[in-house]
Amino acid sequence: MTSPDPVRIALAPVTTDLLVRAITDGGAQVTELSQARALIWDGGPADFPAELPESVEWVQLFSAGVEEFFAAGIFERHPDVVFTSAAGAFAKSVAEHTVALLLAGVRYLPEQLRARHWRQQEFFPHIGTLRGATVAVVGAGGIGREVISLLEPFGADIIAVNRSGATVSGANVSETVPARRLPEIWSRTDHVVVAAPATPGTRHLVGKNELAQLKPHSWVINVARGALVDTDALVVALEDGSIGGAGLDVTDPEPLPDGHPLWELPNAIITPHDSNPPRLRTAAFADHVRGNVARFAEGRELIARIDPAAGY
Amino acid sequence: MTSPDPVRIALAPVTTDLLVRAITDGGAQVTELSQARALIWDGGPADFPAELPESVEWVQLFSAGVEEFFAAGIFERHPDVVFTSAAGAFAKSVAEHTVALLLAGVRYLPEQLRARHWRQQEFFPHIGTLRGATVAVVGAGGIGREVISLLEPFGADIIAVNRSGATVSGANVSETVPARRLPEIWSRTDHVVVAAPATPGTRHLVGKNELAQLKPHSWVINVARGALVDTDALVVALEDGSIGGAGLDVTDPEPLPDGHPLWELPNAIITPHDSNPPRLRTAAFADHVRGNVARFAEGRELIARIDPAAGY
Repeated sequence: MTSPDPVRIALAPVTTDLLVRAITDGGAQVTELSQARALIWDGGPADFPAELPESVEWVQLFSAGVEEFFAAGIFERHPDVVFTSAAGAFAKSVAEHTVALLLAGVRYLPEQLRARHWRQQEFFPHIGTLRGATVAVVGAGGIGREVISLLEPFGADIIAVNRSGATVSGANVSETVPARRLPEIWSRTDHVVVAAPATPGTRHLVGKNELAQLKPHSWVINVARGALVDTDALVVALEDGSIGGAGLDVTDPEPLPDGHPLWELPNAIITPHDSNPPRLRTAAFADHVRGNVARFAEGRELIARIDPAAGY
Repeated sequence: MTSPDPVRIALAPVTTDLLVRAITDGGAQVTELSQARALIWDGGPADFPAELPESVEWVQLFSAGVEEFFAAGIFERHPDVVFTSAAGAFAKSVAEHTVALLLAGVRYLPEQLRARHWRQQEFFPHIGTLRGATVAVVGAGGIGREVISLLEPFGADIIAVNRSGATVSGANVSETVPARRLPEIWSRTDHVVVAAPATPGTRHLVGKNELAQLKPHSWVINVARGALVDTDALVVALEDGSIGGAGLDVTDPEPLPDGHPLWELPNAIITPHDSNPPRLRTAAFADHVRGNVARFAEGRELIARIDPAAGY
């Protein structure tokens, strides 16, 4: 008996040792695109090949959010190819960042960092806790589920929101709410984590009406895409103090322009879309590639398959 | 059959409904000190009774750190009385604060909060992760153990340090090191959480030599007592950038005076001993009192018994 030929997979546009090793560790062989059954594409949509060889069955993209590939018509142009995103691969780093932002807000760190003298009595009433608080996690994909897992020992009750309403697991998940019942959650939660995909249906998911139902100590954390939050309405809520604050790794517009009011608001934490920095991303993407290559070689279902009809 | 008389316990110097309820919920009855078998003392050492009636077997103090009671000679003066601190009662809130400070440091939030324009490329190399990092938790009492538990899903490896070296439990604890082997840990850890009691033996536990062995990305978090860290040596390390930063809920001197260099250092987060604010403390102390009163009434071992010989 001879072992079967290894699966041939192309890597473009950038060849790195780390990804070559991920592909070979996954049980495949790196090859030219013309001979490949799959393509690991570590670039953006602009230089994506206009034509793919008929042999290519699967393309692995490098980012978790793929709206730019939708906008560029990539999926329409290759209807017979299975595309996978890197959704989930970067979940752990983004989730860690999410909890860092949420805890910084709850523990009043932005104002404490500005202090230049001992303001203990003034700060006392503002120090909150996640223990016993309710946190709505809107979008229970890779990031949302990881956030729920990180929050478990903090003793917060989680309201998980997903499209289907199918129960999200976690000892701390008190309830899973389907997206169509989203209007019910705002008045019942202390904090909101936005981790849903950017689709036409999720634009301004957090707007004026939603913010109005939150509490003066509520923090809104957005690590998904800027457009899910209505920035103008958020600025008003932050200026009024009608919510506690906002932690934003993504903004609308993005990059946030100089002079934008969010930069000056004392209860906003802006991190410039760095929750998944290249240093951490590269290692996480290589892990994801290794896993999906092994699944492809073994004919198993791929992780993070893109559903062109659903829009993510 | 008649039920036995309830245990009589005094509450002083301040009587609050919350603590009266905690005592009665614990199965005891609130009484005058002269007739009491125990005293719940929610004040400081200055006005502690010079004499206690012979009937008093147990005194519950309100704070977790009791060095001021040692300094005032309270334990020496009452050698036949069992004293318990509130150690552990406030652990959850302090531990949450600890993780907030550590994550803020690892995720570079202090500098990000100062930004007034989109500095993504500049920030990328500074965003770290707890995943795969080593965190030394020095002092594995109530706070240390709770920190270990909160950190578990973040994927950090914990080196726990305690007096005895008796194994500290936790799936993420890779090693328990006895205090006498403390010198070994500094070069092997990424971050340090100081959660040990303040005793003559722990003064300046983190000093110049220890800081010199840490890494440029290392954060030192102190939520115990200021004197455990050599402030002058810390300021030098923060100014040099030989460590990543420090998150201090306690300082030496405390309160930190106006104009102290720590206030101006961009890699220091000072929170003015507010990790356990009155709002959260009162509720947590009442829980602790309820539990210890029930134990006392049932003749079981009390939680957080002070060992005058050990100094805490």
